Amino acid sequence: MNQEKEHEKKDVKIVAIGGGTGLPTIVEGLRKHTDDITMIVTVTDSGRSSGILRKELNVLPPGDLRNCLISLSNSEKLMCDLFQYRFENGSLEGHNFGNLFIAALTKLTGSFEKAVAEASKILQLKGKVLPSTFDNIHICAELENGQIIEEENNIVDRKNENVHLRSPIKKVFLKPSAKANPESLKEIEKADLIVLCPGSLYTSIISSLLVEGIPEAINKSRAKKVYICNIMTQVSQTHNYKASDFVKKILEYSRGKIDYIIVNTKKPHERLLEDYKKEHAFLVDCDKDEIERLGINIIAEELLDETAEKRLLWEKKDLLRHDPEKIAGVIMMIAEN
Amino acid sequence: MNQEKEHEKKDVKIVAIGGGTGLPTIVEGLRKHTDDITMIVTVTDSGRSSGILRKELNVLPPGDLRNCLISLSNSEKLMCDLFQYRFENGSLEGHNFGNLFIAALTKLTGSFEKAVAEASKILQLKGKVLPSTFDNIHICAELENGQIIEEENNIVDRKNENVHLRSPIKKVFLKPSAKANPESLKEIEKADLIVLCPGSLYTSIISSLLVEGIPEAINKSRAKKVYICNIMTQVSQTHNYKASDFVKKILEYSRGKIDYIIVNTKKPHERLLEDYKKEHAFLVDCDKDEIERLGINIIAEELLDETAEKRLLWEKKDLLRHDPEKIAGVIMMIAEN
Repeated sequence: MNQEKEHEKKDVKIVAIGGGTGLPTIVEGLRKHTDDITMIVTVTDSGRSSGILRKELNVLPPGDLRNCLISLSNSEKLMCDLFQYRFENGSLEGHNFGNLFIAALTKLTGSFEKAVAEASKILQLKGKVLPSTFDNIHICAELENGQIIEEENNIVDRKNENVHLRSPIKKVFLKPSAKANPESLKEIEKADLIVLCPGSLYTSIISSLLVEGIPEAINKSRAKKVYICNIMTQVSQTHNYKASDFVKKILEYSRGKIDYIIVNTKKPHERLLEDYKKEHAFLVDCDKDEIERLGINIIAEELLDETAEKRLLWEKKDLLRHDPEKIAGVIMMIAEN
Repeated sequence: MNQEKEHEKKDVKIVAIGGGTGLPTIVEGLRKHTDDITMIVTVTDSGRSSGILRKELNVLPPGDLRNCLISLSNSEKLMCDLFQYRFENGSLEGHNFGNLFIAALTKLTGSFEKAVAEASKILQLKGKVLPSTFDNIHICAELENGQIIEEENNIVDRKNENVHLRSPIKKVFLKPSAKANPESLKEIEKADLIVLCPGSLYTSIISSLLVEGIPEAINKSRAKKVYICNIMTQVSQTHNYKASDFVKKILEYSRGKIDYIIVNTKKPHERLLEDYKKEHAFLVDCDKDEIERLGINIIAEELLDETAEKRLLWEKKDLLRHDPEKIAGVIMMIAEN
């Protein structure tokens, strides 16, 4: 949505990689600093509206892309609101209008690639939103106990299991394997800065690092590589993870080097921590010494979105997030360093 | 869709009244002659996608309006194709994307009026598409045998009844009664020419004449009034009707005067007539003498869309229609007379 021109725009090419929640938060701040942003978006979602559309219409999951498109849109507010509108009743219940838009465009044009390109035009994007791959894939997890879980929603939603007995993820993989979207590779290669965004570590970030060609392109790129660590752990993916555990997984799957890790040090309000605790989610501990041993520069700052926090205290929606302005400031500082 | 500039545009204000099939056919030709077209569209549909959206989302039926919006759109072809795209699988099956667009806009803006206005902007309309009313109504029929049928789809679809024993429609009425959209009334009052379009006589044309204020506005208007008679009868509405029977019903429900009736005299290909016969539909007989006795000017010409007819012979889709160019030529001749 149109909130530009608060900063002097810099000539910096940023490629940001992630999923439909953390990635748009980061871009919301960054787009005020540069017009050259490419979002590379995971396509492994298999739940809710996206999951239904995958199964029923045989299209790639549109949900993450929809959120990313909106975050780079220059359309009027109504068009963005329409894309995000979620039907509340009947057989359409739970579908975001934007998902149906992308699905219908895919069927009409015959390809998800054309659909995303056309949606980008209609939403008047400044910058690019690209799927990491056009292959129809699922993410699967092998747990420490040997169990294999297939499909993102099954990895995320392991409600039947006792949290304390739950086996951690040993490794994740794609099924079938996937080749990168060539345009995504080109953008990565030309980038000045590559940002691996916060979000579900395995299903939103590593899911794109599993795509053939993407780690290679990241490592080949002369760009500075930045990883923004999550604020909170997630019980089904990163239970008990410290900041160093997050970045170790990023290093493992990117098979390369990370120049910077950005970690939030601001402790959220106690009542919010209590709410998160009910979901077995905890503040990520910034274990600096361990990170330094990995040879990664740490930027540990208070980066919590405090307006969002205040809203959360009243509305009790569970999403603590980075402050888009503050995090963009840190990223631009790295870019210009 | 963009097919303008084949004729010199005339400064003639035309209001065309009807439903989602006949009305767009007439406007397809007329828009090449004038930029000042207002389509006044019935909102009694209760079947298929529109019917489901009415029931599940409590919005007015968008289907007829969608077709009309497309017929006046100046958007690129892809946007129009997208509006007409019909989902073919799963829980979305049968829904036109444009219907979902209008439904989502209605929920988002809080009113059908704003939704149609916004959709008009997005589709870059030249001219106006207006619902005849914003009241949530159904059309009901009282049959000659005293039976009452409620809702349009039940009137149209009386498959369980033997055609030859089927009781004809005695009268139709709205439930509840409806007040006209004030903007529609204004357009009618300013019109140079009012066209009552072909289409389902009771459920697409008379359904708008039943709206309080519309017959009064038509009769008050200094416009010439033209009725374009259907090419074929429809078994559930106009079985055995001759052209004079059609126009008599128009006179009855408009409670006023019709200046011209336009009747096609071109006989369709025998094989198409055989196909229609299977659906108990027959060529409408132009009974000139009876029409003349009503004091109405008859224009009886060969007005069949022969390219459509040729297509039909191959594709066997059952929709004989007026030639948009020819019918527009006749209407403009009346307008300039």
